[in-house]
Amino acid sequence: MDQSERLSRPKVDAIESLLGKRFSVLDDGFVRVVDYMGDDAAVVLAARVSYGAGTKKVQDDRALIRYLMRHHHTTPFEMCEIKLHVRAPMDTWRQWIRHRTASVNEYSTRYSLAIDASQRTPETEWRLQSTENRQGSSGFLDSKAGATLSAAENELQKHARKVYEERLAAGIAREQARKDLPLSTYTEAYWKIDLHNLLNFLQLRMHKHAQAEIRSFANIIGQEIVAKWVPTVWQAFLDYRDQAVTLSRMEASIISAIAAGKQDHAKSLAEEFGLLNRNPDGSLKANRERRELEEKLSTMGLMFNWS
Amino acid sequence: MDQSERLSRPKVDAIESLLGKRFSVLDDGFVRVVDYMGDDAAVVLAARVSYGAGTKKVQDDRALIRYLMRHHHTTPFEMCEIKLHVRAPMDTWRQWIRHRTASVNEYSTRYSLAIDASQRTPETEWRLQSTENRQGSSGFLDSKAGATLSAAENELQKHARKVYEERLAAGIAREQARKDLPLSTYTEAYWKIDLHNLLNFLQLRMHKHAQAEIRSFANIIGQEIVAKWVPTVWQAFLDYRDQAVTLSRMEASIISAIAAGKQDHAKSLAEEFGLLNRNPDGSLKANRERRELEEKLSTMGLMFNWS
Amino acid sequence: MDQSERLSRPKVDAIESLLGKRFSVLDDGFVRVVDYMGDDAAVVLAARVSYGAGTKKVQDDRALIRYLMRHHHTTPFEMCEIKLHVRAPMDTWRQWIRHRTASVNEYSTRYSLAIDASQRTPETEWRLQSTENRQGSSGFLDSKAGATLSAAENELQKHARKVYEERLAAGIAREQARKDLPLSTYTEAYWKIDLHNLLNFLQLRMHKHAQAEIRSFANIIGQEIVAKWVPTVWQAFLDYRDQAVTLSRMEASIISAIAAGKQDHAKSLAEEFGLLNRNPDGSLKANRERRELEEKLSTMGLMFNWS
Amino acid sequence: MDQSERLSRPKVDAIESLLGKRFSVLDDGFVRVVDYMGDDAAVVLAARVSYGAGTKKVQDDRALIRYLMRHHHTTPFEMCEIKLHVRAPMDTWRQWIRHRTASVNEYSTRYSLAIDASQRTPETEWRLQSTENRQGSSGFLDSKAGATLSAAENELQKHARKVYEERLAAGIAREQARKDLPLSTYTEAYWKIDLHNLLNFLQLRMHKHAQAEIRSFANIIGQEIVAKWVPTVWQAFLDYRDQAVTLSRMEASIISAIAAGKQDHAKSLAEEFGLLNRNPDGSLKANRERRELEEKLSTMGLMFNWS
Repeated sequence: MDQSERLSRPKVDAIESLLGKRFSVLDDGFVRVVDYMGDDAAVVLAARVSYGAGTKKVQDDRALIRYLMRHHHTTPFEMCEIKLHVRAPMDTWRQWIRHRTASVNEYSTRYSLAIDASQRTPETEWRLQSTENRQGSSGFLDSKAGATLSAAENELQKHARKVYEERLAAGIAREQARKDLPLSTYTEAYWKIDLHNLLNFLQLRMHKHAQAEIRSFANIIGQEIVAKWVPTVWQAFLDYRDQAVTLSRMEASIISAIAAGKQDHAKSLAEEFGLLNRNPDGSLKANRERRELEEKLSTMGLMFNWS
Repeated sequence: MDQSERLSRPKVDAIESLLGKRFSVLDDGFVRVVDYMGDDAAVVLAARVSYGAGTKKVQDDRALIRYLMRHHHTTPFEMCEIKLHVRAPMDTWRQWIRHRTASVNEYSTRYSLAIDASQRTPETEWRLQSTENRQGSSGFLDSKAGATLSAAENELQKHARKVYEERLAAGIAREQARKDLPLSTYTEAYWKIDLHNLLNFLQLRMHKHAQAEIRSFANIIGQEIVAKWVPTVWQAFLDYRDQAVTLSRMEASIISAIAAGKQDHAKSLAEEFGLLNRNPDGSLKANRERRELEEKLSTMGLMFNWS
Repeated sequence: MDQSERLSRPKVDAIESLLGKRFSVLDDGFVRVVDYMGDDAAVVLAARVSYGAGTKKVQDDRALIRYLMRHHHTTPFEMCEIKLHVRAPMDTWRQWIRHRTASVNEYSTRYSLAIDASQRTPETEWRLQSTENRQGSSGFLDSKAGATLSAAENELQKHARKVYEERLAAGIAREQARKDLPLSTYTEAYWKIDLHNLLNFLQLRMHKHAQAEIRSFANIIGQEIVAKWVPTVWQAFLDYRDQAVTLSRMEASIISAIAAGKQDHAKSLAEEFGLLNRNPDGSLKANRERRELEEKLSTMGLMFNWS
Repeated sequence: MDQSERLSRPKVDAIESLLGKRFSVLDDGFVRVVDYMGDDAAVVLAARVSYGAGTKKVQDDRALIRYLMRHHHTTPFEMCEIKLHVRAPMDTWRQWIRHRTASVNEYSTRYSLAIDASQRTPETEWRLQSTENRQGSSGFLDSKAGATLSAAENELQKHARKVYEERLAAGIAREQARKDLPLSTYTEAYWKIDLHNLLNFLQLRMHKHAQAEIRSFANIIGQEIVAKWVPTVWQAFLDYRDQAVTLSRMEASIISAIAAGKQDHAKSLAEEFGLLNRNPDGSLKANRERRELEEKLSTMGLMFNWS
């Protein structure tokens, strides 16, 4: 064995120092790093398997990582792996578990007593149904009305636990006694995933349209853990994915026209693409795709008046 | 295009006639076949891609399917696909969704009102905790005590629904209002999976150790649907997997000794393998692996007395 | 069973009429549709599982499919499935098989004689190494020099086949005799994949940076098969993915500045982002990311002079 | 942060000491461990997530691992991960890559020059086609005839390399120049997989029916690496999977009859199951399933005479 081939495992000090540390999320949840494999350099090393001996090092590590991210060369990012211990309400976990590319061991309420903790909602955190987005929320209920709901919540959670415990006292099997526990009941799991699939999870679950609860977990994982574990990958992710703007074929052509100062052409394109349909009274019909375009125009500092 | 190459999709009359039909499961759940791809012959066709032109047909279709099943040649079974529409309690669905190789679209309680139905337990169906198996049940509570539990269940489910509806009435977002719904609340999903992975699901969930609720679904899927869709594959599955007996290295050697009439050797092997450890009073210590061996011996009609 | 629940499998006439038809690719390859499940409407139906009874149909099917594609709601596209029979050179198949989400049965050269056909290169189709892209080609060798290479290729392929057949004649096992067959040897496979993962495959393999051989297969699958099978999905794929333009965080801010007429700001942003590093003689250093930005500016009809 | 929660990564001395070490396989291949995550105890820790606080430790770690393996509780084994660097002939790699649950970065012959090494067959290692198993080999060619084949192999490999280099000299793109390289050409890859899926790979590829070349790699990985990394898991794998005997429903019933001394009943069962069909002259027809049963009987030391 050639001494020059001796390896040691990559070690990231910033993540070593927080192994096992609980990051609190919601009222009684947490995320902890249990183990990890690889670092920024491990991504580079895997990508460089492609290069034969003697190939000169044409790009430095940072540039290579950013190139890989930009061009969707995803396999080198699979070469890093992380294992987390999480505690989350079952309702949040129902969304989490939809990501099929992770390995999971969850707390078993067939085997053990259900955790005696439910997520509770403070009086100021009852969110109102969004009128714009059928699957979203917008704003908060006033705290006085909120206090009523919080009290009712507390009562219901106590009632549900009491029923659970009465069943157990009667000798009912744990697997059946649990059947009416509220979705707010906390569960725990070990969750292991590679970096590529973790970034997919984070992009989706840190998104403003993700539900607030799982977004809280995703933000902690992204900003407190991944950003420290693989800082170069994380910055590339922010620059090329999370904060990137994707323009559809139609949007790209309309924005080109606007940027070129061809307002009339932009408008006729928008009409052709069905973005400017009108009501009988001449006003513009609501159109989700036009609203999305307007958001992008606004982000890019471009103004446009459709009329 | 060579006319001899014209294909039409394989069609299975027995499954065509039950497309869309609801098979009832539990008090308010169901399974329906929405679509399917392939049949017994499609498994054979895929396996035969291996054979060059002119290779004589050495085995008939049934024998080939049974050979593939027996020898774990799994890829041809992936060539069939089925899509089901299911309605199940969320508690059952939590187990179901752990199978990661399926495609899923689930009813969204962020987008829509939660289904107004919860699984209810009749007074005669409260199962007692198993003393042998920490994660199982065994026997039933007497129906008088059961009636009390069923009444309490009903009251709790009504309470939870009332709280849910009060939140909605107060304008709370559906995504948050649902947080204390009981796990017994019904959900629906489209679930699409290939035949190989479906058989894995069925082997696990039809097993006597699976929880009664999901076992009800698995039995319907296996016996009412798969058995009619791909009857030859189904019989092979029963013969070579579901009803097969696996002997560990240790079990195989002990059974060989018993079958050969070498009782003493069998016993000394069992001792060597740690199956016959004793308490201070000389009685055999409880040992799960020995109990499993005894079950297999009993299944095979072999008697043995360890002492 | 409610009669209103009777279903029949979705059927797409445009694809039924080409079941089994060979689409030729390269000199001796092909693609054929063997079976399929689902259609445009099946995507919609799966997405609509989310909607409770009584929800009014707020969007028509086309708009819904386009919304799903635009917002990366990928699971409904998994509800369609297709099975192809392909014949491709092993070298191409080596790239193809890297897509792990498909089911595959490949022709076995352990079991059967290797297919007696290799991909041959006409004298006009020898591609020159790209100087810009280390893993690409650009332009063609002149046909006179090409003729020499084609003749040498022919001779090598014959030599390799002769050695293969001599081994078989000597009684060598097929699994070993094949070991020196050229990568150009044709192989065949059944390949089954869901629509979502097929679109991922097509986006990557129809891309101008994909190797010409696999691009030929991808183009046929996309334009001759998918476009006919699920025309609404296909158009949405072209509009929102294949022909979309993604701007990185940095590109979006530079383009905003250019579009707003703030040339100096655009330039100072580009400097800040490291796109305008210079050589000692003052000329701009080569920079891949700047070149990519310039391509996008050009696509969008925006002009910019960095100096 | 509670000090009691501080973790450090599990470390396995036996594997640390061989990180980077090349294990030679075939004439010019190798396997090296690049990185790993987890150990025997990590499997246990994940399985114990199920246990609530205060649950007494009913089983020691070894017994728990063996229980999990025996009962196909596979998810805890996914909690360990290993990354290997391998060098193997492309022909072997074609089989290897069929395992879809791993992460892979392979040496790119689009980007770099193909590795200048092909697997060569010594004169004594030409394997003869098995007559019993269409996809296997049995015995060796005599070394004199082998020498002729080895010389022809050497000549062909040189010829193929010369053609490859002439193409490159003519400016042909690497992606096309490689098209006629022999399957025996070596390639390299980083290959990362979790322990559960690695054991599946090993069970299949260490099997006596696996091709000799990939079996060489599998044996090294199993015996030199996994056995040292997770020794308790490895022993459980050998005892409950690799060396286990699976009896089909039919085999179990026949063996029960034999073991009970009911020879006639065993024979009539075998007839009923179609294992004893006869030729017109009264001799037994060849029957693969009967042969498999006879092998198991022989393994178990049971004798039986069908006539």
